Amino acid sequence: MNLPAEFSVIARYFAPLAAKGGLGLADDAAIVTPPAGHELVITADAMVAGVHFLPYEPAENVARKLLRVNLSDIAAMGAAPLYYLLTLSAPRGLPDAWFAGFARGLAADQERYNIALLGGDTTSTPGPITVSVTMFGHVAPGTALRRSGARGGDDLWVTGVVGDGVLGLMALRGEHADPDGSLAARYRFPEPRLGLQLQGIARAAMDISDGLVQDASHMARASGVSLVLDICNVPLSAAGRARGIDFVASGAAGGDDYELLLAVPPDNKAALLESAAQHDVAVTCIGRFEQGAAEVRAVNADGAAVELGHKGWSHF
Amino acid sequence: MNLPAEFSVIARYFAPLAAKGGLGLADDAAIVTPPAGHELVITADAMVAGVHFLPYEPAENVARKLLRVNLSDIAAMGAAPLYYLLTLSAPRGLPDAWFAGFARGLAADQERYNIALLGGDTTSTPGPITVSVTMFGHVAPGTALRRSGARGGDDLWVTGVVGDGVLGLMALRGEHADPDGSLAARYRFPEPRLGLQLQGIARAAMDISDGLVQDASHMARASGVSLVLDICNVPLSAAGRARGIDFVASGAAGGDDYELLLAVPPDNKAALLESAAQHDVAVTCIGRFEQGAAEVRAVNADGAAVELGHKGWSHF
Repeated sequence: MNLPAEFSVIARYFAPLAAKGGLGLADDAAIVTPPAGHELVITADAMVAGVHFLPYEPAENVARKLLRVNLSDIAAMGAAPLYYLLTLSAPRGLPDAWFAGFARGLAADQERYNIALLGGDTTSTPGPITVSVTMFGHVAPGTALRRSGARGGDDLWVTGVVGDGVLGLMALRGEHADPDGSLAARYRFPEPRLGLQLQGIARAAMDISDGLVQDASHMARASGVSLVLDICNVPLSAAGRARGIDFVASGAAGGDDYELLLAVPPDNKAALLESAAQHDVAVTCIGRFEQGAAEVRAVNADGAAVELGHKGWSHF
Repeated sequence: MNLPAEFSVIARYFAPLAAKGGLGLADDAAIVTPPAGHELVITADAMVAGVHFLPYEPAENVARKLLRVNLSDIAAMGAAPLYYLLTLSAPRGLPDAWFAGFARGLAADQERYNIALLGGDTTSTPGPITVSVTMFGHVAPGTALRRSGARGGDDLWVTGVVGDGVLGLMALRGEHADPDGSLAARYRFPEPRLGLQLQGIARAAMDISDGLVQDASHMARASGVSLVLDICNVPLSAAGRARGIDFVASGAAGGDDYELLLAVPPDNKAALLESAAQHDVAVTCIGRFEQGAAEVRAVNADGAAVELGHKGWSHF
C-alpha cells in the first residue's frame, strides 16, 4: 500500500532528524527520560511567512532561524538545550525542494547546537507557511535565570551588539545599504548566547526579541525596580552608530537581536567578563537598576535625560 | 507605560490558565520538574481554520478540540497527562471575544483533564487562525504503548464507535441529518480515552485520527504483521450503520474519531473488558493480527473477502 504524501514527507525529510526518543516519528508521541535530577526548561515560538520571515526566504534559512529564536529563550534561562518538537502548516503544492531545504537547515543547526527532533505534526493550510517549535533545555534545580531577579544596585549588561537585526531586515527589503551582507546575516542567523555559565553571576536574564527598550522595561517591571539606561553605552555596529542616538532611544532598534540582557551585581563583574571572554562574546554595561517604582529612564553621556520611545514589536 | 495589545491578551486571557511552572507566562521559558523516575511522553498537533475546524466554529469549541486531539495521543501511549504549551497565530483584528472564548474552552478542559498551561507564543498572521499544542504526559519507565508491539495471534480491539467524527463534520456542513446534534458533538468534542490502564493488557496502541482502515494499516506495518479486519464487527452508531458496510470498507469512515486501536493477546481479553467496564468505555474486537507480510485484508460475517479502499486523510 502506498503511503499518502504527508507520510512520505515525514519519512523522507524529517525522520532522519529524529532523536532516539522520537521513535522514528512513527508513533503517536515521543518518549524521553529527562536528565536525572535536573529541571526542564521549555519554550515555544512560532514563525509565519510574511510576518517573521520574508515570503521568498530560502527554506533552509527559515528552519535555522526558527531553531535559533527558540534556543535564544533556552539561553536566556541559563539552560543547555536538549531536543525539540516541530509543527509545520504548509500550503498544498509547496514543492518537495522546500521541505528538503527546510530539513537541511534543521540538520545543520541540530549539529551546531547538539539537539535533535522529537516529533511534531505536519498539516496543510490555505494561508502562509506557519512553523512552530517547542524547545527543551535543562538546568540544575533552582538555577534557571528569570526576568524577575534584578535588584536595586545591579548593573544591566547586554551581549553582542543590538539593532543589527532590524537593520538586516531593512537591508533585505532594500531600505538600507548592506554591501557585505553582514546585516542580512544578522537578521537571518541570530546567534543564541548558549553556554555562558551565568549561574552565580547574573541575577536576572532575558533575551531581546522585541527591542532593547521594550524588553529592558519588561525586566524592570518583572523585578519591581527602576532602570536607568546609559543610552550612549548601548553597543551598536557601525551601521547602527550611523543612525545616531535616536536609533536606540526611539525604540527603533527593535526586534530580532536575540542578545541577552543580564542583571549583574557589581561584585560579579569580573566573573561575567571572564565567562564572556571564554566564549568570545562581547558584554557591555548599559545601565543600572535602582530601587523604586518600575520605570525606565535614559540618560546620555553627560547624565542628561533622553526621551524614550516605545516602538517595540507587538503582534496585535 | 502601557503594554502592547499582544501582552494584554496574554495577561488577561492566558496567564490565569498557567501552571506553577509556567511562571505566570511572564518569562522566556517554563521550568518544570518531571515526575521523579517517570518518562515523559510528548506530542504536538496543530489545527488550522478551514482545514481542521470550520471557519466560524465558536472559539471555545476550537480550544477544547485542540486539547482533546493532543490528549488522545497521550492516551494512545498509555500515559497520564500533565501540561501543555500553546502557540496561536491570529489575524489582526480578531476580536477580544474570540480570545475570551478560546480561553474559556481551555479552562473548561484543563479542569476536566487536570492539566495546565506552561507557556507558548502568540503571533499575528495574514492567513487563517492557526493553533498548535505540545502536550506532555508521563508513564512508568518502559511502559509506554507503541504502535509497533502487535504480534501474530493478537486480537485488534477498538474503543467506542467509529465513523461519527466524519458524519458530524458532514452534519455541520448540512450534508447529513443530525436532529439531536449528537453527530456534531462527536466531531467537536472527541473524548480522549485516558485512564484505561492498558499496561500489561495491550501490546500496541494508537488513536484513530486519519480513519480506521488507514490507521489500522499503520499499526500492522509498524509491527511487521498482517491484519484481518472483521468489517461487520466494526462498531458504528445508528447513523453509521445506515450507510452500510461500504462506509467502513471504503475508508470513508475516516478521521476525527480519536478512539483507540489496541492489539491485545487473547489471554488478556478478560482484563481488557474489566478495565473498559470500570471506565464505562465500550470495546469491540474487530480483527486479528497474523504473522506474515504487513498487509491488511477484510472479511465479512461469512468470512468472504471485502475490498478495502484507502480514503484516509492526508494533508498533501
